[in-house]
Amino acid sequence: MNGRSIYMDHIAGTPVASEVLEAMMPFLVEHFGNPASIHHLGEAPQDAIFRARSQTAALIGAEPEEIIFTSGGTEANNLAIKGVAFQRMSQGRHLVVSAIEHYSVLYAAKALERFGFEITLVPVDEHGVVDPDDVKKAMRPDTVLVSIMHANNEVGTIQSLADIASVVHEGGALLHTDAIASVGRIPVHVQELGVDLLSLAANQFNGPKGVGALYCRKGTSLWPLFHGGGQEDGRRTGTENVAGIVGLGAAAERVRGRLTQKMERCARLEKLLRDRIAQTIEEVRFNGHPHRHIPGWVNVSIRYVEGEALLLHMDLRGICVAGASACMSITAKASHVLEAMGLLGDGAFGTLLFTLDEDNTEDEVHQAVETLGAVVSRLRSMSPLYATRAAS
Amino acid sequence: MNGRSIYMDHIAGTPVASEVLEAMMPFLVEHFGNPASIHHLGEAPQDAIFRARSQTAALIGAEPEEIIFTSGGTEANNLAIKGVAFQRMSQGRHLVVSAIEHYSVLYAAKALERFGFEITLVPVDEHGVVDPDDVKKAMRPDTVLVSIMHANNEVGTIQSLADIASVVHEGGALLHTDAIASVGRIPVHVQELGVDLLSLAANQFNGPKGVGALYCRKGTSLWPLFHGGGQEDGRRTGTENVAGIVGLGAAAERVRGRLTQKMERCARLEKLLRDRIAQTIEEVRFNGHPHRHIPGWVNVSIRYVEGEALLLHMDLRGICVAGASACMSITAKASHVLEAMGLLGDGAFGTLLFTLDEDNTEDEVHQAVETLGAVVSRLRSMSPLYATRAAS
Repeated sequence: MNGRSIYMDHIAGTPVASEVLEAMMPFLVEHFGNPASIHHLGEAPQDAIFRARSQTAALIGAEPEEIIFTSGGTEANNLAIKGVAFQRMSQGRHLVVSAIEHYSVLYAAKALERFGFEITLVPVDEHGVVDPDDVKKAMRPDTVLVSIMHANNEVGTIQSLADIASVVHEGGALLHTDAIASVGRIPVHVQELGVDLLSLAANQFNGPKGVGALYCRKGTSLWPLFHGGGQEDGRRTGTENVAGIVGLGAAAERVRGRLTQKMERCARLEKLLRDRIAQTIEEVRFNGHPHRHIPGWVNVSIRYVEGEALLLHMDLRGICVAGASACMSITAKASHVLEAMGLLGDGAFGTLLFTLDEDNTEDEVHQAVETLGAVVSRLRSMSPLYATRAAS
Repeated sequence: MNGRSIYMDHIAGTPVASEVLEAMMPFLVEHFGNPASIHHLGEAPQDAIFRARSQTAALIGAEPEEIIFTSGGTEANNLAIKGVAFQRMSQGRHLVVSAIEHYSVLYAAKALERFGFEITLVPVDEHGVVDPDDVKKAMRPDTVLVSIMHANNEVGTIQSLADIASVVHEGGALLHTDAIASVGRIPVHVQELGVDLLSLAANQFNGPKGVGALYCRKGTSLWPLFHGGGQEDGRRTGTENVAGIVGLGAAAERVRGRLTQKMERCARLEKLLRDRIAQTIEEVRFNGHPHRHIPGWVNVSIRYVEGEALLLHMDLRGICVAGASACMSITAKASHVLEAMGLLGDGAFGTLLFTLDEDNTEDEVHQAVETLGAVVSRLRSMSPLYATRAAS
């Protein structure tokens, strides 16, 4: 590896911003009191959580009391899916989710089959877009919850949630959206999206790991995953991760003030990356919606090379990108997202996901593409498929 | 308040030790990678979690793979109760818990009534001790789980878990213990206790808030509260709170090396506190088992004063103690623990809980008792009950 590494895997996590860390530190050290305590050491943590709740709410256009702090995005997704399902199971046991959901939605829904729930998967088109009409077709009188992600973590495609919300509410169900990839990267407003529940994670916008939130529209009740002392209005009990919550709030406020410039910068870097890849490497395919996607997302399939090998060779040269979704690396399966988009095809593609952030530079993009070009040439030179490609 | 406050509420939370914070910091800043990533930025977090798992396991005599990291004690308790109940519900829907469990056990069990579970509460004696025979009587052929806490958070009483474990296993059920108050304060060894599941929280022994663990004996399967990407062997999925987990590991290793001296110091300070209170204030009653309790725990009921007023007056004078359990302060109900011990009586007592730690000093103990004496005198001078006490 030649010196410093180039990080283009921001969907897997982002570094904690210095001002976020600064906000957190007092709550790791001097303000160690329990927010539930009546004595004065409970006050600073209580006030800090109050402030973080407002900061988090402001990022998504919610009211502070609609924010439930969680231990991250996975908990938020599980709380939404299981919380609504268990709360409403006397009304019906049918859930609708899209085929390209993150596993923390897909598997949470699937796990409910043990309790007699049935799950219907909504398909997507070749760009990863859910058609609201397909949601309508999937719904039944006993549907209690629909969960359609806002922007897909792998291909970045953004859904038309407002249209989906109309359909879902007409059908008498609630709409949850996994907005973990989108919050902090594009404008997210719960009223405009029309959702009843929305998941977000601090680590996607320079906050700490281990903290996230579920937006839960006023009047929407959940069966809590955790019961106990009564924190978070009884919806998510347990002594608060005060430093983490403060970090989420600070990160939310930070990104809210810079979202427009961040999006512009990411879009510019993304265009450069796409153009340079297209110029440098033949037989590539960009996956995801051409326009409606998260700025900075480049999901590219490269013919005649193997994905795992690509990833490892890039890593050896100091360039951190993702293959499948970050959370999937440990299982190393083929992407269910590309499969749902009908793009797995003959399997003779290796796919990389570049997720750029504002801390990336044009220099890094040039270096990444040069490296990618060299790696692809090398891998193709060893590939029997590439050698005989004229025949195919 | 005269200068620095005196903190004697360690059950509500402990400050993060400097060496613990030092271990955590790199994982908030430079090593921000996702442990699930294949590229090299995943390595340091992976290694750190591996190490923290061993450190945590070593503190309780477990194998590393038997440790499931959670977002804290409440999650660990809920995962144990609901995880076992949902996993085994085809075998039976009966749970046994003691009457003095923390609310994160009691309410988690109670919440399962929605799924057809029945809960039997086991009584305790006047010292807060569970009789194994009472556990035996409470068990039924359809009992799938018994949960009896190791040491009670309010009165500190330690149970004879090994005897209870024999009874539970003879009856074909699993035994969970909430050891949140005991781990890091007294020796805890899962094999000696004979438990199948055990909850602990970092913040009880100078680790950070927002992280804990569930010990889950090899071969014990759980229905996960979170489904998703597959972390923690699928038993608790979600991107890891790496810094928090590292903090838990470091805190576990730190306290393991000093447990004997810590216990001795806490016991000495506790004795001083008890003696001085008994000398200074008339008509007090110490609650909990006289010998088998956590060193440093002083739960004292003081006649003719009101608990809330005691607490607030102590706080105004800079002394932080607890009334009911920390997690209960927000609801301010009478203690269900004292009630189960038959000690609520005529209600003419105010109860304070002092939980000392090795960072307390003899000077602080003297100062706390002087203050307490003054506060009690003042409150009693205003109490009609005290004025007419001779009549009673």
